[in-house]
Amino acid sequence: MNKPTLHTCLSPALLHLYDVKNTVVVVIDILRATSTIATALYNGAKEIIPVDSIERCIQLGTQIECITAGERDGQIAAGLQYGNSSFEYPESFIKGKVLVLTTTNGTKLLHMALAKGATEIITGAFLNLSAVCDHLIAMNKNVILGCAAWKDKPNIEDTLFAGAVVARIKEHFSMNCDASHIAEHLYNFAKGDMYEFMKTNDASHYHRLTNFGLEKDIRHCLTIDVANVLPEYVDGKLVVQK
Amino acid sequence: MNKPTLHTCLSPALLHLYDVKNTVVVVIDILRATSTIATALYNGAKEIIPVDSIERCIQLGTQIECITAGERDGQIAAGLQYGNSSFEYPESFIKGKVLVLTTTNGTKLLHMALAKGATEIITGAFLNLSAVCDHLIAMNKNVILGCAAWKDKPNIEDTLFAGAVVARIKEHFSMNCDASHIAEHLYNFAKGDMYEFMKTNDASHYHRLTNFGLEKDIRHCLTIDVANVLPEYVDGKLVVQK
Repeated sequence: MNKPTLHTCLSPALLHLYDVKNTVVVVIDILRATSTIATALYNGAKEIIPVDSIERCIQLGTQIECITAGERDGQIAAGLQYGNSSFEYPESFIKGKVLVLTTTNGTKLLHMALAKGATEIITGAFLNLSAVCDHLIAMNKNVILGCAAWKDKPNIEDTLFAGAVVARIKEHFSMNCDASHIAEHLYNFAKGDMYEFMKTNDASHYHRLTNFGLEKDIRHCLTIDVANVLPEYVDGKLVVQK
Repeated sequence: MNKPTLHTCLSPALLHLYDVKNTVVVVIDILRATSTIATALYNGAKEIIPVDSIERCIQLGTQIECITAGERDGQIAAGLQYGNSSFEYPESFIKGKVLVLTTTNGTKLLHMALAKGATEIITGAFLNLSAVCDHLIAMNKNVILGCAAWKDKPNIEDTLFAGAVVARIKEHFSMNCDASHIAEHLYNFAKGDMYEFMKTNDASHYHRLTNFGLEKDIRHCLTIDVANVLPEYVDGKLVVQK
């Protein structure tokens, strides 16, 4: 039997090159949307509604009972209540609640995958690496690892995560994809200390965030399996797949 | 004094994200357009006219005294005389002649850089790595390492070359570009035996070409400085910059 295919798409601006239909798309936005999503759902959030603009986020906040959250340039966006750090969403705060989250890169990719007819859209982060990998192996369908990137420019942290997934699941897939090999090599090189790797490589996100004193946040986002749920996008909402 | 910037663009489909104006763009198409260009010019070709279609290539062949060359799917394209291998262009054959070369990925990127107003467009390959690096350092202008990729998908060999350039010249530039770091790491990992790296990593180009028995060609295209000229694109033609 032929194995399903595995591709890594390094930027939303390249998604049109891949056959998204009949495919599981993993949306990857390590710093920090998909890390926050994993954390909030792991800590019991009822659901997360990702939206692509601050206006839409504020609007939903007036229509349904929810928490509105999102950042622009590393600060809580004007008109919203919370930011984009996992540490803002402990169980004591988020359990049972609806979170409306606006992010730029991650939400854009998610909506693109939806528009292109992906079979299933899930989100991935180091925090839920095993849940993502176990699921992809079990599904036995074609997979696209979709890096949200930074304003469409490939970034180190999303590529590292794609590489971590490739390293774990590649035996189960047919992989004719140079970007996947590049990602896997980067991960294998960096996995001993990803934080140090980000720092020494001047990863652009690293600098953007540490300017706002968020070193602790970055370290957390590079920690494996501490929020090991599987967020799936269903009917406009991210929920934990049981 | 501020250093000029250095960016790596992993695919023509991402070029719009970079500020091409007032920039030196290095067009990279290792397998095999820019390797062939370096070889033919090193061996004394008068000039190379890169064109984006077989039709245009055939048409020029009827208008000027020249050699027409190009491949599609690894075979000499119907209506053209020669292919895309460096070994077809020894000095005894190419010296003093005009070569009209049609390539898909490389020519497309070259024309895009031109349309976007690049200050200077040169082509890079391992065969002329030192000439490229020495020139970029001497110019002291912003640089974009433009990978031609494969049908817009990032590929290993062009990324490797970008990494080789980054490794050699980065001290002279300001580099806030994750793709450049990724490329440099890939190169540092692979540089001991790039051919073996391409082979073990199932590089898609490697497989496409070896299917046509071109192992020797690939090994040649990964050899450093054996055709160490600087091809510059001026008035529609690639010529050796003196």
